[in-house]
Amino acid sequence: MIQLETLALKFTKGLAPAELAILDQTLLPHQEKWITLDCVAKTIEAIKALRVRGAPLIGVVASLSLAQSADLGTDAKQLLEEADSLYEARPTAVNLMVCMERMRKLLRAGASASELLSAAVAIFNEDVQLCDRIAANGAELLQTGDSILTHCNTGALATAGVGTALGVIQKAHSQGKTIHVYVDETRPLLQGGRLTAWELQKLGIPYTLITDNMAGHLMNLGKIQKAIVGCDRIAANGDFANKIGTYSVAVLCQYHKIPFYVAGPYTTMDWECPSGAAIPIEQRRSQEVLGVEGSFGTIAWAPKDSPVYNPAFDVTPSSLVSHWILDSGVYDRSDFENRRVKKCLQ
Amino acid sequence: MIQLETLALKFTKGLAPAELAILDQTLLPHQEKWITLDCVAKTIEAIKALRVRGAPLIGVVASLSLAQSADLGTDAKQLLEEADSLYEARPTAVNLMVCMERMRKLLRAGASASELLSAAVAIFNEDVQLCDRIAANGAELLQTGDSILTHCNTGALATAGVGTALGVIQKAHSQGKTIHVYVDETRPLLQGGRLTAWELQKLGIPYTLITDNMAGHLMNLGKIQKAIVGCDRIAANGDFANKIGTYSVAVLCQYHKIPFYVAGPYTTMDWECPSGAAIPIEQRRSQEVLGVEGSFGTIAWAPKDSPVYNPAFDVTPSSLVSHWILDSGVYDRSDFENRRVKKCLQ
Repeated sequence: MIQLETLALKFTKGLAPAELAILDQTLLPHQEKWITLDCVAKTIEAIKALRVRGAPLIGVVASLSLAQSADLGTDAKQLLEEADSLYEARPTAVNLMVCMERMRKLLRAGASASELLSAAVAIFNEDVQLCDRIAANGAELLQTGDSILTHCNTGALATAGVGTALGVIQKAHSQGKTIHVYVDETRPLLQGGRLTAWELQKLGIPYTLITDNMAGHLMNLGKIQKAIVGCDRIAANGDFANKIGTYSVAVLCQYHKIPFYVAGPYTTMDWECPSGAAIPIEQRRSQEVLGVEGSFGTIAWAPKDSPVYNPAFDVTPSSLVSHWILDSGVYDRSDFENRRVKKCLQ
Repeated sequence: MIQLETLALKFTKGLAPAELAILDQTLLPHQEKWITLDCVAKTIEAIKALRVRGAPLIGVVASLSLAQSADLGTDAKQLLEEADSLYEARPTAVNLMVCMERMRKLLRAGASASELLSAAVAIFNEDVQLCDRIAANGAELLQTGDSILTHCNTGALATAGVGTALGVIQKAHSQGKTIHVYVDETRPLLQGGRLTAWELQKLGIPYTLITDNMAGHLMNLGKIQKAIVGCDRIAANGDFANKIGTYSVAVLCQYHKIPFYVAGPYTTMDWECPSGAAIPIEQRRSQEVLGVEGSFGTIAWAPKDSPVYNPAFDVTPSSLVSHWILDSGVYDRSDFENRRVKKCLQ
């Protein structure tokens, strides 16, 4: 009997067919509703609609969904097509692609359903372990008295484990360090205001919610000591893509001489990608900027036909990063320049 | 017969008692509803609720409201009390205080209702003229091909005339220069998304609406050549208060070597205020950050009891300003340092 459970994911495989369910994150924080994913098409819909989100968690859920499909008797040819479709569900995060590539390799080598299941479970367990290592590595950088700015959501909702950037914060808190978190609401999709605030409240970690344009003002008042964010893809030179607004946070930190950290597992490293310029940026629908959409309601406040620009991510150059907090260690720019960054889980 | 009319204000005084009406800006862009202000209490409510807004326009409306009160027979003692209440309706913008101080001086000198009316009309006309001069001065700084970032709303909705920062843009456009405007939506109250987008659409000036956290990314892509904002108060050393988020725009401009301009009339200058540190910053209700509120609906997406920080303004130091565009001319930092900034309408 295999049972996996996180804040936002449940997977069971016993004698009966495999069952996969996710917490619909579009309904948070007002409603905690689980939805069953019983085919890859539903998983793809859930990924595209951001019901499941967070670069690491998307990779884990896609892998489990593919294993479930094999468990339900889908043939190898169809499974490969499903893996391709999952691979393309979102273009920026690399974890999804890394996970699907692992599953496709197994499929091409004629793996059985139970071998695919083992691989997916291994991906899950590995992510839990990666989060723990990132958290332990990063917590060393935080001190009692720190007020820490974070952007988007990078906690237990975004991974199979304790999270990346938020995992670091949680770890420092659990070590007894007195810290305070400033949470960027993270327009347009409000992952900070909806999800990070909800998680921090659950964890009992003191926080203050702000709009994204207040962070600079707070830095100028000396109220922020550190900033820490997650990432969707790190290029070989250390440039990285993350939620839109991350780049501005990095520039503001540089101007105010505030350490700026990025946290992620090695699965977020894209060694084939030489620099941030090569990372594709997903563009999303105008409606997200013309107003807000969610379980809380749909509202448009801008003139209906306003022209809109809506990139989901931006790229932060390595020159603005103080340290990269990976599972294998904490790195600085010279580590990237001298290729000292370890390439896999060890 | 006196008739004053702007995009957001109507005032009439003939044989009948004076009539004052404003466009309720909280209902824009979806609804264009005029409301009658027939007593100072209603005007104060309208100012506090942002039905009328924009530092210059608030001063004009408060002056006309006081003149109307005198026209309706309110005695001098009561008028002085009303002037005091109007003075305190919002704490950051200085124009309101400058206008009320002018009216109080007249009241103390025993001015008649018709003298008070003349003074209020003079304040109105002066603001129209100030806007024209600011627009003409600032338009010289904009060239064909420029994409210009702006924040909040600083147009005809915010003044008695063509506006301050947006007036400059309108002037350059009317001179035949091909320009494009990037509009920060300006959380939490969305004056950019609701009002500036609406005004630019009415004016036929090409624009793109973005969330506040996208501006840095656009600068990094080389898509923004200039930024121009309005102001609520300029200190004697050139530091200025403006809508929250302005400071971040200024830092981002500095990092990307993009000229950053602030535009305002001389009534925004506070010569008694030595630096930005002395400008009081209005703190507003949590609800504005927990969600959005407006005629379009009221929604909260964050956990109900999330702690929130919600300053309405921030202060930008003079070191980040390329040029100050005032009615009396375009100034740089050395002009402030050497006290070459002209102190009144000439």
